[in-house]
Amino acid sequence: MHGLMQRWPLTVDKILEHARNWHGRREIVTRSVEGPIVRTTYAQVFDRAKQVSHALLEWGIKLGDRVGTLAWNSARHVETWYGIMGVGAVCHTLNPRLHPDQLCWIINHAGDRVVFTDLTFAPLLLANLHQAPTVEKVVILSDEAHRPEGAPASVAMYEALIAGRPTDTPWGGFDEETACGLCYTSGTTGNPKGVLYSHRSNYLHTLMTLQADVMGLSARDTVLPVVPMFHANAWGIAFSAPAVGAKLVMPGARMDGPAIHELLETERVTFSAAVPTVWQMLLQHLEATGDRITTLKRVVIGGSACPEAIIRAFHDRYGVEVIHAWGMTETSPLGTLGTPTADIAVLPYDQQIPYRLKQGRAPCGIELKLTDDADRRLPQDGTTFGRLKVRGATVAAAYFRGEGGEILDAEGFFDTGDVATIDPAGYMQITDRAKDVIKSGGEWISSIDIENLAMGHPKAALAAVIGVAHPKWDERPLLLVKLKDGVSAEPREFLEHLEGRIAKWWMPDDVLFVDEIPLGATGKIDKKLLRARFGDHVLPSLRAQTPEPAPAPEPSPVLETVSGPEPAPSKPKGGLWPFGRK
Amino acid sequence: MHGLMQRWPLTVDKILEHARNWHGRREIVTRSVEGPIVRTTYAQVFDRAKQVSHALLEWGIKLGDRVGTLAWNSARHVETWYGIMGVGAVCHTLNPRLHPDQLCWIINHAGDRVVFTDLTFAPLLLANLHQAPTVEKVVILSDEAHRPEGAPASVAMYEALIAGRPTDTPWGGFDEETACGLCYTSGTTGNPKGVLYSHRSNYLHTLMTLQADVMGLSARDTVLPVVPMFHANAWGIAFSAPAVGAKLVMPGARMDGPAIHELLETERVTFSAAVPTVWQMLLQHLEATGDRITTLKRVVIGGSACPEAIIRAFHDRYGVEVIHAWGMTETSPLGTLGTPTADIAVLPYDQQIPYRLKQGRAPCGIELKLTDDADRRLPQDGTTFGRLKVRGATVAAAYFRGEGGEILDAEGFFDTGDVATIDPAGYMQITDRAKDVIKSGGEWISSIDIENLAMGHPKAALAAVIGVAHPKWDERPLLLVKLKDGVSAEPREFLEHLEGRIAKWWMPDDVLFVDEIPLGATGKIDKKLLRARFGDHVLPSLRAQTPEPAPAPEPSPVLETVSGPEPAPSKPKGGLWPFGRK
Repeated sequence: MHGLMQRWPLTVDKILEHARNWHGRREIVTRSVEGPIVRTTYAQVFDRAKQVSHALLEWGIKLGDRVGTLAWNSARHVETWYGIMGVGAVCHTLNPRLHPDQLCWIINHAGDRVVFTDLTFAPLLLANLHQAPTVEKVVILSDEAHRPEGAPASVAMYEALIAGRPTDTPWGGFDEETACGLCYTSGTTGNPKGVLYSHRSNYLHTLMTLQADVMGLSARDTVLPVVPMFHANAWGIAFSAPAVGAKLVMPGARMDGPAIHELLETERVTFSAAVPTVWQMLLQHLEATGDRITTLKRVVIGGSACPEAIIRAFHDRYGVEVIHAWGMTETSPLGTLGTPTADIAVLPYDQQIPYRLKQGRAPCGIELKLTDDADRRLPQDGTTFGRLKVRGATVAAAYFRGEGGEILDAEGFFDTGDVATIDPAGYMQITDRAKDVIKSGGEWISSIDIENLAMGHPKAALAAVIGVAHPKWDERPLLLVKLKDGVSAEPREFLEHLEGRIAKWWMPDDVLFVDEIPLGATGKIDKKLLRARFGDHVLPSLRAQTPEPAPAPEPSPVLETVSGPEPAPSKPKGGLWPFGRK
Repeated sequence: MHGLMQRWPLTVDKILEHARNWHGRREIVTRSVEGPIVRTTYAQVFDRAKQVSHALLEWGIKLGDRVGTLAWNSARHVETWYGIMGVGAVCHTLNPRLHPDQLCWIINHAGDRVVFTDLTFAPLLLANLHQAPTVEKVVILSDEAHRPEGAPASVAMYEALIAGRPTDTPWGGFDEETACGLCYTSGTTGNPKGVLYSHRSNYLHTLMTLQADVMGLSARDTVLPVVPMFHANAWGIAFSAPAVGAKLVMPGARMDGPAIHELLETERVTFSAAVPTVWQMLLQHLEATGDRITTLKRVVIGGSACPEAIIRAFHDRYGVEVIHAWGMTETSPLGTLGTPTADIAVLPYDQQIPYRLKQGRAPCGIELKLTDDADRRLPQDGTTFGRLKVRGATVAAAYFRGEGGEILDAEGFFDTGDVATIDPAGYMQITDRAKDVIKSGGEWISSIDIENLAMGHPKAALAAVIGVAHPKWDERPLLLVKLKDGVSAEPREFLEHLEGRIAKWWMPDDVLFVDEIPLGATGKIDKKLLRARFGDHVLPSLRAQTPEPAPAPEPSPVLETVSGPEPAPSKPKGGLWPFGRK
């Protein structure tokens, strides 16, 4: 027997309609790509999003067609999202940091018929359009005065495109399972894979993140999402802020310390979200200038592990609560958040720190488990680490066009590719990537734990740990260190530094000094490349057993990243990159 | 094209499972019907709920079968809810304040196969069981030592029933549209009508109420739901508290000032929800004793309009934030809440009061509109009042077994039967019941506005306004006043009191003094009965035109309520009654 409640499909157009109806005068403030601060409202954004829809329908965009966006966080980008999604087309967020070849590969794989791009990325896109034959139309998110020199006449300028169009194009009216968004993970193995969100999953993610123990946004908040809409959906803020009528402050192309600080203060921001690098830049700016932050109350930090120094600086010097989070493209993206439980909230702050350094707890709607390689559940005792798997209405079931095949286990859980512990209080902590964990004698060694400790050595600029083959133990850890400029060191200095801080059997079997440690497209150490270069390094303990001396590692060249050149010179390095671990 | 996210049906069993997994040691504390304070945990409640499920399956309860509960707020009642819902049976909450005949009518209409009852109501139920032939089993929520004298051997005692049963009965696995709960509205016209909630609607209601701008519960909260689980689902708290791991404090049968105050303090409650009468009793107790409340931060007040004195006393004397709310059985029940917007939050508290007195704003997921009798939308200007209509996934589409026929308008909105205004800031205010509004010359006069003003006269104990027939204006207002004991008054005293405070054409055409004003089952004035008695009262202005003197109203007898005798002598009068207006 079914209940007798209203059929009211969970489609995201209802979110912006709610903002228009109940928070129509609430502002969206953008540091525009053109330069000036631009102010608009939810009522205006709603009307303009409807105009975008009208243009798309005129171009023959239909339910399920993919429309790309290659853009910074701005009011126009928000309008474009809702304009696309409202008519049941799929908003495909493109990550401008990818190499143009990869970008075009993704556009073709998605079959994007239209792409909306910011001025910043227009030259890149137009120069490579011959590689993207599915694209029929390009729209540049600016006005006619900013038309790039040499842009073909077929390229539409956003303001001219929407001007004067009707604002009453119908939205919604389709099944809530209808595809709504598409985001590719920049996979470290194989081709990028697309996560195809539904209206239902995005709506439920919005409600889930609005819980007090998750983002907890209210109509009284002013929210600055530094996390980009083009990767992992700005952690859902383009949905959750209008859902509650929070004021939105969009940073556009500038994520540096002074720019973020200026927006925080002039717009009286109360809540923000970004990766640790952004906050590092802000804190450095504050330290250098002696400036204060006066209205900010909470920041959510994810994308990579947040250093204790950031958590403490925010809390001790600026009275800002840091909430550590974890998630990935495949989880919409929020998975866990470190809001304290009742037991932990009453502890002195120093004793809260070990919990605040973990990636947090699962909200209602997210199921987590730890398993071994044979899919057996492992205890949640805070020390046993295993594969982290996740299940829920906001979690991917498959990739677009079936890439990667079956991705759920027998119980329907998605394997995150992370290795983690979960403690008795429910706090999850990422200890490694499954493919980076070192399997020694049937036990697992966390490469990240050793790296973090090695990074604490005063001579280290960057450190990486990989497993190298060992005839008895299968794998043993090798520590690679890039020293600070002008410094020299002996391997034993690093081994002595680690002694007593990790289990004896975790001690690296060798230490190599390298000139560069390669970083991937998401700013993380490219261990695949390191393994390719150093995976056959012969450990000192084994050299006596080899008939010939082991080959010395190649002189370490400056390794290139796989992500190609920076698409935009004005973009700060590192800071804005993705949430999630893929 | 559909998204590729996980199929993860929104069923409420997942809520208690989440609490078990992540907040297993968090407490549920009950003032038991037997007397002592009883402490349990979400882990224990989960296991015991599974045991309830096992017993129900053994009795042949199947998907869609109705199982009744007639019980106070307690951990056992929570266990029973989840035990029923977890296996896809329908939890039918019975309101013990109804007349036994009506209770049996509802049990039969629902077709309840099993009824779980508290000791308090067991005699009532057992004495009337012959009128409820669908009931195969009665379970008393106590242990063998408390078996009522003379109870048939077939009556099961809860603790004996569940003891030793397995705790692994499977839950869920059915469609999220599956019926989950059933609650009858004590309609003032016609038979009671059942609202049949689905798992989906209850799960979505839970997420909706967890928003910071609605209930905003967190893992750090301790929640005391005084609002009963047997009417309007305790405003969803039996779902929302476990969903976030909040500690639950259950008041059992005692809702008086000292009892509530004791629980607030000894259990360190941070959040509570109740109708105004309960808070009135608490505040009176505090004033009489000089006691303080030390941990309570927020109270949600609904069920009827909250007097300004309560809001001010909580805020000024005890530092507690009062959130005014509106809802009804048909809306799961939460509809609107008065959490302040950014603009209102910065006003001095005195200037916030007019907004805090309104019933609040619609959260994302609730659509509201005002219409006239011809279904035309009316402006939301804060002064125009019209029929309040509501749409959303948590709103009823029809009543059980089709009672009442089609209840949605052409746009799919449910007519609440309330008349309201909505101001430009989005705050809704109930001004009347649609059937009580007085239609004079094509315009509407709010009976409640006049009543509230008349109640402010120092001689008034209670006041009611009804419309009486008028040949020219259709209807004109008649004011009925019950004076305080030992006081006498002239009609002109009341008319002078109203003058200048309402529009001239709103002035009552006559004032009658009566010995009693009848109250209905939900503690509200029974205007149907008043209209039956006084609807043909001939107004003074018309008496000259009548050929014969108008008949004087009958001497006002002490009118009986329609709800029959109190079922339980220990129950405080008034306080625990329903949210919603039906």
